[in-house]
Amino acid sequence: MSLTDEQKEEIKKQTSVSLPTKRAISLGMEEKLFLAHEVLDHGFIRVIDYMGNDSSIVQAARVSYGEGTKKSRDDRALIRYLMRHWHSTPFEMCELKLHVKLPVFVARQWIRHRTANVNEYSARYSILDKEFYIPEKQNLASQSNTNNQGRGEPIEDKEAQKIIKTLETDSLRCYENYEEMLSDKGQKGLARELARMNLPMNIYTQWYWKTDLHNLFNFLRLRNDEHAQFEIREYAEKICQITKSWVPLAYEAFEEYQLHSQQLSASGLSSLKRILDGENVTQETSEMSKREWVDFCKIIGKKSEI
Amino acid sequence: MSLTDEQKEEIKKQTSVSLPTKRAISLGMEEKLFLAHEVLDHGFIRVIDYMGNDSSIVQAARVSYGEGTKKSRDDRALIRYLMRHWHSTPFEMCELKLHVKLPVFVARQWIRHRTANVNEYSARYSILDKEFYIPEKQNLASQSNTNNQGRGEPIEDKEAQKIIKTLETDSLRCYENYEEMLSDKGQKGLARELARMNLPMNIYTQWYWKTDLHNLFNFLRLRNDEHAQFEIREYAEKICQITKSWVPLAYEAFEEYQLHSQQLSASGLSSLKRILDGENVTQETSEMSKREWVDFCKIIGKKSEI
Amino acid sequence: MSLTDEQKEEIKKQTSVSLPTKRAISLGMEEKLFLAHEVLDHGFIRVIDYMGNDSSIVQAARVSYGEGTKKSRDDRALIRYLMRHWHSTPFEMCELKLHVKLPVFVARQWIRHRTANVNEYSARYSILDKEFYIPEKQNLASQSNTNNQGRGEPIEDKEAQKIIKTLETDSLRCYENYEEMLSDKGQKGLARELARMNLPMNIYTQWYWKTDLHNLFNFLRLRNDEHAQFEIREYAEKICQITKSWVPLAYEAFEEYQLHSQQLSASGLSSLKRILDGENVTQETSEMSKREWVDFCKIIGKKSEI
Amino acid sequence: MSLTDEQKEEIKKQTSVSLPTKRAISLGMEEKLFLAHEVLDHGFIRVIDYMGNDSSIVQAARVSYGEGTKKSRDDRALIRYLMRHWHSTPFEMCELKLHVKLPVFVARQWIRHRTANVNEYSARYSILDKEFYIPEKQNLASQSNTNNQGRGEPIEDKEAQKIIKTLETDSLRCYENYEEMLSDKGQKGLARELARMNLPMNIYTQWYWKTDLHNLFNFLRLRNDEHAQFEIREYAEKICQITKSWVPLAYEAFEEYQLHSQQLSASGLSSLKRILDGENVTQETSEMSKREWVDFCKIIGKKSEI
Repeated sequence: MSLTDEQKEEIKKQTSVSLPTKRAISLGMEEKLFLAHEVLDHGFIRVIDYMGNDSSIVQAARVSYGEGTKKSRDDRALIRYLMRHWHSTPFEMCELKLHVKLPVFVARQWIRHRTANVNEYSARYSILDKEFYIPEKQNLASQSNTNNQGRGEPIEDKEAQKIIKTLETDSLRCYENYEEMLSDKGQKGLARELARMNLPMNIYTQWYWKTDLHNLFNFLRLRNDEHAQFEIREYAEKICQITKSWVPLAYEAFEEYQLHSQQLSASGLSSLKRILDGENVTQETSEMSKREWVDFCKIIGKKSEI
Repeated sequence: MSLTDEQKEEIKKQTSVSLPTKRAISLGMEEKLFLAHEVLDHGFIRVIDYMGNDSSIVQAARVSYGEGTKKSRDDRALIRYLMRHWHSTPFEMCELKLHVKLPVFVARQWIRHRTANVNEYSARYSILDKEFYIPEKQNLASQSNTNNQGRGEPIEDKEAQKIIKTLETDSLRCYENYEEMLSDKGQKGLARELARMNLPMNIYTQWYWKTDLHNLFNFLRLRNDEHAQFEIREYAEKICQITKSWVPLAYEAFEEYQLHSQQLSASGLSSLKRILDGENVTQETSEMSKREWVDFCKIIGKKSEI
Repeated sequence: MSLTDEQKEEIKKQTSVSLPTKRAISLGMEEKLFLAHEVLDHGFIRVIDYMGNDSSIVQAARVSYGEGTKKSRDDRALIRYLMRHWHSTPFEMCELKLHVKLPVFVARQWIRHRTANVNEYSARYSILDKEFYIPEKQNLASQSNTNNQGRGEPIEDKEAQKIIKTLETDSLRCYENYEEMLSDKGQKGLARELARMNLPMNIYTQWYWKTDLHNLFNFLRLRNDEHAQFEIREYAEKICQITKSWVPLAYEAFEEYQLHSQQLSASGLSSLKRILDGENVTQETSEMSKREWVDFCKIIGKKSEI
Repeated sequence: MSLTDEQKEEIKKQTSVSLPTKRAISLGMEEKLFLAHEVLDHGFIRVIDYMGNDSSIVQAARVSYGEGTKKSRDDRALIRYLMRHWHSTPFEMCELKLHVKLPVFVARQWIRHRTANVNEYSARYSILDKEFYIPEKQNLASQSNTNNQGRGEPIEDKEAQKIIKTLETDSLRCYENYEEMLSDKGQKGLARELARMNLPMNIYTQWYWKTDLHNLFNFLRLRNDEHAQFEIREYAEKICQITKSWVPLAYEAFEEYQLHSQQLSASGLSSLKRILDGENVTQETSEMSKREWVDFCKIIGKKSEI
């Protein structure tokens, strides 16, 4: 990550001022505000603002005149109850605003979560910085043989070096030509909105991104998941840590009932009951496809023998 | 409005505690937090929380590392520019959470604004309070002759008294029967989710309602408007005052470019140019319908002569 | 249900005309179009329009130039894969438009699903019909002792008769007073937007409601559920049947992976594995609350012994 | 545009089959279905499906049992009334599904319209085609001097040739290296989800995009506008033509009240009235900024003299 001195100064200035407020506060989050939490080689996540804390969830669920319940033990029980029974609206009453720096190809996955507010740095208006995501060698991998949209085995040294060299060279040349086209020295200079089309998708962009806690949990459940691409998962993991500091009780319930939970299909439930009744169920007698059977066995901790 | 002593106590408790925060603050809003601003006979609006201030809009528009622009004069100019050119996303970066008490028939209009988060008091879970909206005499009016969905002339004394009497009597009887059906004295007692269906739509309900500033402005533009029903307009006007305290620069731009602006249609623009060129344009030569012509004349301050 | 002769005539006219289209068609749905499927005592669901069929889901998932896969067996496998892995966007490519007649208190639950388009019959513009939901005796029940927002035991004959009598009497009197206030015979007559507030929440309203298949499934999962109120569940069940005729493969996958599936929490999964390993797990050693333990035992078909 | 023979065959197959339906039909749209309407050098727009026609808007506004009004003259008047008074929900009752091929940098502007359903071709799953947007010479322009996010004067021959050469060379080299990294000949081959990051943003992608008519009009108003980038405007213009064939009455009202209308601010209205009263208003006495004054004069067809 490469913050300029001016940027560091601005961040420092923001973190050094405290003012009194009557609003709900999260002490854990106050400590994280504005700081640049590093992700990948040049990316970061900065918390710009938050609304609400664990008590706010309880307060909204009760449509109450004061704060949440009297005891934090009751808050915890109610939050877990709400999460377990899919009550989404109380969680929507907390809001998070982030400043994120991320490669364009990650931004294109991220933006598919539509229930959020986004302000992206405009490459029609400004010139993009010369910063590209170049993966670390150990994160390069071949196409998966079993998963059409995932990666498989690590790529070894020589091939990896060549790939990194290619990414670096192409990024730089594209950027140099971007600058060259923009330049008005001895020429008119191409409009920014046109020149940017020469930039590759590993260039970094930035945005302000704001969403409520319910939709944030949806994002985290899908993106902090083994099926998500490694690069976006890195961001999701960092946001998980931040969310844990912000609303520890809600985050704990999220882990219990969503992130580390598993869905059993109708056929899965039926097979499970037969197994618990002592029957020796196999894939053939389970009404599940091979792939589903393997997933099912993994969930219940049974050898799948396929 | 009828807050219980316990409710007043809870509100007082909330307003008496200040804690330091590093987040953006709106001094105008801090003064309004938690207080019950009266609307209609038993309704209110309470600000529970807010995110952001005028500078936050600028900060998001610039995707900046620090606060907004250096000078508040620049903030104002940028905010006006953004509003004038329909840049909605920076305004989405501010968020407002209200606690509202309102009659059910108003709630049913309000809920049609879908881009908001809502937690309503549940009449499946709790017993509703015995509070009904009874209009003041001067707000009773007959059906409009020109507007199929609006009110016309005031209703005079005797008829008005009769109407109010009817509303009061029916409300009370329905509520008494609601209580009677719920009661488990000498009987099983009907489930709350069923008994509530006997209540009329002037009963008060409550909710927590949260939305961003862009969608709030949409709400205010449509509901603080002469075509909106008087009762919801009362709420919209109160929220306008609150918003003005919260984000004075954005609110000023909203009044200038939205609330007090007018849309001229293609035909309207064409007629206007002909009038400015000295032509004596009439409805017949304007390509507008009679109704449109009347509206057009009103907008440009001309007698419509129809 | 009480359609007027004119309404029956209009429906008949719509069902009698067929025109050629090049768009995707669902034969099962064509048969259901426009017909009034009865729900409760005066309600109905009418399919007004639909977009897409099972193949459209596949076609969108593949971003293809032609129709879906070659063989319908492949369509089924892909649809099940998409549903199992939470791929929601292909299901959003099908759309359903309904005309629904429903009691106001049901409409107020329904409208909480915000990702839909709604056009409701306006009681500012028109006079509402004299039709009220009066539950059948066998559907009256007392408040549940265990579930704060549900119903418990059936209410017996005498009390039930009294309740029905009350609902009928109050509905009629409120409606008569509504008509009386509206009347301009010998008086001005109150504006419709005001008079309507005297009507109880079991009066029927109507709307056009349009949503995509993904959000429809969300609606059906939450509303065709034992925790949903009986009255809205009646609508959800009818829509389930309609959806099955429309997109049989997607509906089958929905039942398998959503409607009849179950979520196991992290603690539930851990307990399950211990049970399968032969351990005698009890609530005390399970890390689950009593209520969660009971739910867990129900899911895996085990006696809970609490 | 470069459709393969197989793609042409699939399109031909879709356009050649007609089946009877009872649903609302748009004859103008049936003729356009599935055909590839060319945009830019390799892009297109194909209508995959539509729901509703002009009558459907009226039918929804009336929550009617049959079709719209009896006479199409009445349909037109009601549709214009609805559009003029910001009644958005009846327009939401029509839906459009498109298959679009477009450069990535255009897709990134387009996706900011969040109220739509999108299925994009996955570069994690598939290999992208070797097709890049290379602007035509006459569309190359320098950065605007007055508009920070727009283009100014055309770029002349020699500089233009150089730019095009650069774009072509960089695109090809990046694509060749993309293929090279993917290849498993003599090496493992990099996963697709990683290799794609080497591709520049003028590469073409594809998606299915579905939205309702109200949100489509919002999209068209903002993107078929002089402030929008030329490349996305080309798509918006094509969709305008398509929409006109689909719902001619609604499209006509859209042009009249939105696309070719203008908003006058509070200050603008005040100045206009003074001008109509014969006063000689100047920028200095208008309470408008210079930029606003210029815009205002343009709207009312007056020389701005600044």
